[in-house]
Amino acid sequence: MASFDSLHKPENNSPNIVNPLNIEEFRRQGHMIIDFLANYYQNIENYPVLSQVEPGYLKKLLPNSAPNIPEPIETILQDIQNHIIPGITHWQSPNYFAYFPSSGSVAGFLGEVLSTGFNVVGFNWISSPAATELESIVMDWLGKMLELPQTFLFAGNRGGGGVIQGTTCEAMLCTLTAARDQILSKIGRHNIGKLVVYGSDQTHCALLKAAKIAGIEPRNFRAIKTRKSAAFELSPESLQRAIRLDVEAGLIPFFLCATVGTTSTTAIDPIGTLCDVAKDYGMWVHVDAAYAGSACICPEFRHYIDGIEKANSFSLNAHKWFFTTLDCCCLWVKDPVALNNSLSTTAEFLTNKASDSKQVVDYKDWQICLSRRFRAMKLWLVLRSYGVANLRNFLRSHVDMAIRFQLLVESDDRFEVVVPRTFAMLCFRLLPTALEKKQNGFNKNGHKVDEEYTNGINRKLLGSVNASGQVYMTHTLVEGIYVLRFAVGATLTEDKHVIKAWKVVQETADAVLTAV
Amino acid sequence: MASFDSLHKPENNSPNIVNPLNIEEFRRQGHMIIDFLANYYQNIENYPVLSQVEPGYLKKLLPNSAPNIPEPIETILQDIQNHIIPGITHWQSPNYFAYFPSSGSVAGFLGEVLSTGFNVVGFNWISSPAATELESIVMDWLGKMLELPQTFLFAGNRGGGGVIQGTTCEAMLCTLTAARDQILSKIGRHNIGKLVVYGSDQTHCALLKAAKIAGIEPRNFRAIKTRKSAAFELSPESLQRAIRLDVEAGLIPFFLCATVGTTSTTAIDPIGTLCDVAKDYGMWVHVDAAYAGSACICPEFRHYIDGIEKANSFSLNAHKWFFTTLDCCCLWVKDPVALNNSLSTTAEFLTNKASDSKQVVDYKDWQICLSRRFRAMKLWLVLRSYGVANLRNFLRSHVDMAIRFQLLVESDDRFEVVVPRTFAMLCFRLLPTALEKKQNGFNKNGHKVDEEYTNGINRKLLGSVNASGQVYMTHTLVEGIYVLRFAVGATLTEDKHVIKAWKVVQETADAVLTAV
Repeated sequence: MASFDSLHKPENNSPNIVNPLNIEEFRRQGHMIIDFLANYYQNIENYPVLSQVEPGYLKKLLPNSAPNIPEPIETILQDIQNHIIPGITHWQSPNYFAYFPSSGSVAGFLGEVLSTGFNVVGFNWISSPAATELESIVMDWLGKMLELPQTFLFAGNRGGGGVIQGTTCEAMLCTLTAARDQILSKIGRHNIGKLVVYGSDQTHCALLKAAKIAGIEPRNFRAIKTRKSAAFELSPESLQRAIRLDVEAGLIPFFLCATVGTTSTTAIDPIGTLCDVAKDYGMWVHVDAAYAGSACICPEFRHYIDGIEKANSFSLNAHKWFFTTLDCCCLWVKDPVALNNSLSTTAEFLTNKASDSKQVVDYKDWQICLSRRFRAMKLWLVLRSYGVANLRNFLRSHVDMAIRFQLLVESDDRFEVVVPRTFAMLCFRLLPTALEKKQNGFNKNGHKVDEEYTNGINRKLLGSVNASGQVYMTHTLVEGIYVLRFAVGATLTEDKHVIKAWKVVQETADAVLTAV
Repeated sequence: MASFDSLHKPENNSPNIVNPLNIEEFRRQGHMIIDFLANYYQNIENYPVLSQVEPGYLKKLLPNSAPNIPEPIETILQDIQNHIIPGITHWQSPNYFAYFPSSGSVAGFLGEVLSTGFNVVGFNWISSPAATELESIVMDWLGKMLELPQTFLFAGNRGGGGVIQGTTCEAMLCTLTAARDQILSKIGRHNIGKLVVYGSDQTHCALLKAAKIAGIEPRNFRAIKTRKSAAFELSPESLQRAIRLDVEAGLIPFFLCATVGTTSTTAIDPIGTLCDVAKDYGMWVHVDAAYAGSACICPEFRHYIDGIEKANSFSLNAHKWFFTTLDCCCLWVKDPVALNNSLSTTAEFLTNKASDSKQVVDYKDWQICLSRRFRAMKLWLVLRSYGVANLRNFLRSHVDMAIRFQLLVESDDRFEVVVPRTFAMLCFRLLPTALEKKQNGFNKNGHKVDEEYTNGINRKLLGSVNASGQVYMTHTLVEGIYVLRFAVGATLTEDKHVIKAWKVVQETADAVLTAV
């Protein structure tokens, strides 16, 4: 039996404060935060794009433990300005050209803010029907914009449909697990050690990680070699060869990940022919278009996913190059039942009439986690606030800026474009080798001018460019070549930023070449 | 070679619109959204707590495809008001008592908004040092509030530390994968089929799902029976027995998940003695305190995690009962190297001096996904905006409200408390059996009054209560008993809402009992 004596007395040292969700405080502080962020965007070009802090900087600035007594939002915002912003690498800066973009937008932001405000936990339909239904609807909208086959759409009524995951890593792990269980249910679970996963040496490392998590033997992971001369695409012949060898060795091929727009160089695997090879072995083919998928809403890029009708699943990250804030990975599958078979959970506390009726989608059974945020809101806002025509134009404007940058690179004969550009990312490098070969393979200071030397120069170039704080780019290494990656896609980027970036690169190259 | 001819022309039918991250639009629309949400909170009690829409309702209200032309935010907000809000189950309503709370707060909201505004992708240290460093700092802050042993804290300098995951499902999958690889590296990967996972029949279904994803044989999953008479706690003796049987059968025990605050009834497993059993077999013990962990910042509840120093990992969901919006699962591990060994990725495009120096934490190697949001921001804002003393008081106020509800239930002899209450959730039911036994086991209409009958009555009671839209509660089933769960924790809930909820339950019970 409970009694009133069990009730707590407030801690003496604590002043009475208002309810943590007090509406007037919500309004007052909410408006403050909007202005704070608007000012942040206004001043964003004043900050070094790549944070220049040293490891451990923040520990020196913050207390060792949480305060006992509340602190006012004004103090906290001051600390964010003084202590946090210097430690941020500004992905929203117009001078950000690193990795791939994390393209924010007003609509994406508002959508996330709304879903944070509602703060529903949409694990199944009943826990917030709108969250589930809007997700199915916008996934069909986006699927239609991409001209995905009906087999991937709810509207197609053939069992397929889309789901919003957090990231591509999750999409890969879910599809790989589904494919694994599908084959093991036929051949017996004890054969797990024989299953083989295929990708190329350009496939995102998320695939290897997913395979490891799913218990696939690490030695049964095939990263098939690609070549610069073939634009780093996975060749169907190489795949065929690798599969045959494995089959002869008594192994069981079951999963292929093809990529449209690899991380290093935006290479494009030939989906259709790869699927034809995989089909002969009953393999699941997932197409990872994390970066480049969004461009396929433009008719002129759509052909890069030709053959998608033969794949089992397809994903792209709307949080990369589609104006939807992190995280929003759009995954379409032909056979959600395969996902559900692996990922569904049943617990009495989750049972409800709607789920029992099988009339509804319970997205918890399409993903790793039970709890899920209302991510469809932001994608919906992006699609509606900008409209299809403008979204295409925005993406094209980024491609155009990459073309302008390419023209600049090509106009300076100290530089070369390393891999042909397809989307809004250019792989280039400084090529002292070409310049200095005239001097019998040695530079003016007697250093041997070879690939290693060239890589060293480019490493130095990138380091200096980024240390300037004026722009941020990153690198990759392909066939032993150290490459600078210039990825256009930050929403605020305009022509003038691209031109400035090139000027920084050129001037830094001058300095680097003078110093060697 | 690129040429200017490659540049795109804008689609004809598209008007020129401003940059998607235009700062004036950000400010204007941002303020609108704050007012929209403030008004939502103001009116939240006018909406049925549990959405009353029918499956498929939204498809009938929205177009089949995305608009080609932009739509103004005013139209979109109108649609959210008219079409989305009716489909939302209002987890932020003060009349929400279902599942476990998803307790929002102004500070949690602001933190999420800030991190959405910065929109950094903090996979490694260099990609935004502040995101990583603040996460390590707040995880130490919260760890200290919980009096976690030094072995779990960065400050302890013994290798341990904390990480923010999305949900407990991820925390379980990561720790289970780490434990799996740790043991398989010793005994050989071919033994994966012999590994056994242990929990109780009250352990969250996320454990089974994690085990399945990680490739553990489904038949090697032990959900050890618990009893109502022992408050549904996992008995160390039962664990010991189960392990012995498995070992005798040639299997290999490697992972135990103990729970502090189970989902059905907030049962508490005895961590210390369970760890003692597990230790003899070299097992990894994870402690899942998803719901109840936050209460352990109060000295009077801290003893429920006594023995935690013997466990390998510990997690709680700050997004459940700690005022931090979804998602924010706090996971501490003694041996992050074990996590890293299973989850780290290497790719040239991710290499950087800071990571190479081993001076920094790269959280991508502590979790499933590569990309990660700046979640530490919201937890930091919650801790600072409210302070430790008030956070304790808020949690206690919820416990007190649950006690008040318990007193009301106990004052009506038609009801019983099914399981003793520990935190802010009460398991109760209507007990016509007790009332009607007097009539020789049959009710006035000749129905047999047994457990099944009682369950039916309670099912009806809950259905009617929720259909009223006035409150929302959920149920569970333990030892065949259908139980109503009344979970206090929505931030806006006050005494008056608890009293109203009880009135709704009582009045509905009157109606249900009259009708049978």
